[in-house]
Amino acid sequence: MSSGSELLIAQALELGMDTCFANPGTTELPMVLALDARPGVRSVLGLHENVCSGAADGYARIAGKPAMTILHLGPGFANSIANLHNARRAFSPVVNLVGEHASWHISADPPLNSDIESLARPVSAFVRRSTHADGIARDLREAHASATGRRGSVSTLILPYDHLLADGHDRSLRPALPREGYPTIEADRVEAAARLIEKARNPALLLGGNALYGAGLDAAGRTGVTLIGEVSFARLETGRGRPLLQRLPYFPDQAQTLLDRFDAVVVCGTKMPVSFFGYGDMPSRYLDERDDVVHLAGSEDDAATALEALAERLGRNAPITDAPKIAPAADGDALDAQKLGDALALGLPEEAIAVVTAVSSAAPFYASSIAAAPHTQIALTGGAIGEGSALSLGAAVAGGGRPVVALEADGSAAYIVQALYSHARENLDITTIICSNRRYRILDIEIQRAGVGNPGPHARSLGDLGNPPIDWVSLARGFGVSGTSVATVGELRAALARSLAEPGPTLIEAVL
Amino acid sequence: MSSGSELLIAQALELGMDTCFANPGTTELPMVLALDARPGVRSVLGLHENVCSGAADGYARIAGKPAMTILHLGPGFANSIANLHNARRAFSPVVNLVGEHASWHISADPPLNSDIESLARPVSAFVRRSTHADGIARDLREAHASATGRRGSVSTLILPYDHLLADGHDRSLRPALPREGYPTIEADRVEAAARLIEKARNPALLLGGNALYGAGLDAAGRTGVTLIGEVSFARLETGRGRPLLQRLPYFPDQAQTLLDRFDAVVVCGTKMPVSFFGYGDMPSRYLDERDDVVHLAGSEDDAATALEALAERLGRNAPITDAPKIAPAADGDALDAQKLGDALALGLPEEAIAVVTAVSSAAPFYASSIAAAPHTQIALTGGAIGEGSALSLGAAVAGGGRPVVALEADGSAAYIVQALYSHARENLDITTIICSNRRYRILDIEIQRAGVGNPGPHARSLGDLGNPPIDWVSLARGFGVSGTSVATVGELRAALARSLAEPGPTLIEAVL
Repeated sequence: MSSGSELLIAQALELGMDTCFANPGTTELPMVLALDARPGVRSVLGLHENVCSGAADGYARIAGKPAMTILHLGPGFANSIANLHNARRAFSPVVNLVGEHASWHISADPPLNSDIESLARPVSAFVRRSTHADGIARDLREAHASATGRRGSVSTLILPYDHLLADGHDRSLRPALPREGYPTIEADRVEAAARLIEKARNPALLLGGNALYGAGLDAAGRTGVTLIGEVSFARLETGRGRPLLQRLPYFPDQAQTLLDRFDAVVVCGTKMPVSFFGYGDMPSRYLDERDDVVHLAGSEDDAATALEALAERLGRNAPITDAPKIAPAADGDALDAQKLGDALALGLPEEAIAVVTAVSSAAPFYASSIAAAPHTQIALTGGAIGEGSALSLGAAVAGGGRPVVALEADGSAAYIVQALYSHARENLDITTIICSNRRYRILDIEIQRAGVGNPGPHARSLGDLGNPPIDWVSLARGFGVSGTSVATVGELRAALARSLAEPGPTLIEAVL
Repeated sequence: MSSGSELLIAQALELGMDTCFANPGTTELPMVLALDARPGVRSVLGLHENVCSGAADGYARIAGKPAMTILHLGPGFANSIANLHNARRAFSPVVNLVGEHASWHISADPPLNSDIESLARPVSAFVRRSTHADGIARDLREAHASATGRRGSVSTLILPYDHLLADGHDRSLRPALPREGYPTIEADRVEAAARLIEKARNPALLLGGNALYGAGLDAAGRTGVTLIGEVSFARLETGRGRPLLQRLPYFPDQAQTLLDRFDAVVVCGTKMPVSFFGYGDMPSRYLDERDDVVHLAGSEDDAATALEALAERLGRNAPITDAPKIAPAADGDALDAQKLGDALALGLPEEAIAVVTAVSSAAPFYASSIAAAPHTQIALTGGAIGEGSALSLGAAVAGGGRPVVALEADGSAAYIVQALYSHARENLDITTIICSNRRYRILDIEIQRAGVGNPGPHARSLGDLGNPPIDWVSLARGFGVSGTSVATVGELRAALARSLAEPGPTLIEAVL
């Protein structure tokens, strides 16, 4: 006999889930005690639940398997939702363990009581409330199977306190349930894509999912077709020696202009591309009116296998083209987004994980990074800002010593500054670069684009982060991370090199 | 003709809603531009949406009327939920304005798309999605009427971008709709309560809602009965010259022991009291088995009127008893929770607003504050930690110059440290005292209470905030707030006096 919470943790280990990002409260104490009773799980404290969920997302993107979160009731779960939204859009497998009041106590409607299911459904493909201690291991197996099926998804398990405490039976521990595999890519789709490419003068492949790394990216490169990555990608491998790939621009007019240059587009590993926002003067869907488009594989399909079939059918084995070299700027040059992106691309070590969540300041880095040392990139998938420092936490935990470099906007980083504490606590090799322009710059750009020439005091003030300016070096110090502020290319280069040479986390404020 | 967003803001001003706590994104830009086109609303930026919602909660508790929030789509709303949960439990009127994708863009399922209604319902008594520009003013009137009906509640209005931009008609502006008043307190309930009190030797009044301040508290005092305040109160007026009142203890055994001392309990302005958590060895409800209890008025009833009727029926006019004086500790004494609570009570200026969200460190202050200068207290109502600095932001904005002093636990304050930036930006007279014990102390207490004598490494580590210790003075500086760290009674006294004498925000780390 063991408690429900001990069965839970024992079953988690059996399923290979050995990492959890936790912010427990009273109702989750049985799970915390079970982590001690059944050793083998690495627990990482987050000072806010969005740190935990964002870290689980980052972990999944690098480890390719789910981490657990431990969250405190409805309000604790609520705090995790924004980054679970990003995880859902990344198709990251995540298993949330949400404590709940004792089942007999809920009808008293104590202060922390709330409708957890209603909060969980918008971000979770699987939501289950356990009904007794004996069933918890089975519930976890089903949560795990759902999370790891097809490309990946979020599972949320709600665990009443009394079920966690009650006795259950060890015989319920089992290996993982069979998970739903990718559906088969139909041969006629491959044939249609191949014919479209063969007859086109200037075709493109628009890639997402597992087409952006490993065998998928290699196969895409062999086709010799121009490669474009989806805007909001979960994971990308790029750099010297890998097939050249540009990212679809964020703004719809720029994206449309790029796609209009091609007389054939094969979409593989992502849905048919849509605009981030609907502006009124641009359609939602970029490729809707065209008949020179084939949707070879969607977001939840096995794009890599489809691309291997396509490359074979085309009978091509195009060589990898060298990326254009980056011309280094002078040390004394003041930083701007372009010089920052170039310097970062030049300074990235091989096998680094670059966590790129900035929007208005990151475009130059995306372009330059094809000429960097080979590395992995993970980006913001769901548009919920405030994930960078959490993603880098999870990526570093999963990366087993690979250096992590995060490029974050100041407005976004302020959302999740608490994550720096976990960087320090776990002494992880994370370099956080803050693009400090002291604005929610994207709002200024949107105001300009909307044709408002002279914004009023509210429009100016609500986008302003300069009054007072956020002192990033002090914030980092407050959470135990050493920080430095740089304003020139040379200062950035030196700070980045120093951070990469020394163990533990660093924050670099890049004043733009 | 005006845009939907201009009608929205004009209607808000017509309804007396002149304050909004905002974290806008692209879809909310029309609302931001309308704040400029229709001047009169004070907009306050929060660096995280939970700052906005917690500030709206604090604002409502002091102003007695709703502020608006401006939140960015589902993920922005999600970030606000934990403090909306607290606002719901405080019966605070709040009106959320949540931007949404253009209605024609939603079917494209862009990255930020999510089920906002499912997220909103658990915390909102009113959820509405606008259907056209002309209807927005009416939607806002209904949201306002719902929020301000009875004791107060949260309304959430979802506003698609195209409706905010489209033309609407000014004729739709109207004064506030009639709001639902409090239900009548039945005379036989007052009679039953009076008889119970008359025949008891040692009766108590357990108070909540509007029984804890103003006319309600005065009437409760006139009855001469022992007064107990609910654990998680929205607003309390206490201090010298006001009726003595003790707070019901947080832990159920202590609460039960206190209530068992009385041979009659009249509950007024709150629901029948329940335990915060269900532990297995204690029932959910403290007063369930007793027949010497009368529930005079519930959480959403007019407790003040009920108490005035009760005092009149009893024909009593008991004088106010002097609170026991606080013996000041020596300046050189090291701080502990008791000495901190005493020093704070002695140092509070008249008409201050004390924001008390600490749990394990605040009990001594609650006891001492009855001997302080007369002041207002607001506390954590829903148990969702991470509201203190947001509550104090809203209370200071509503308080029109009243000094605000917040007593926060370090673990809780780390959740919402971004709110300090709004303190600095608005240059508000807020003193934030961090009870820095470098632990989630409540977890240690719960582990002890669960009989775990020797917690293992996970249990120790997941409650630990000391490795590294959070440097609160640096965090404050990072967000533009001047800070100081104190370890003795004299240092605290001097820092508090200095903070209260100088304009603008301060943070005091009280090392316990």
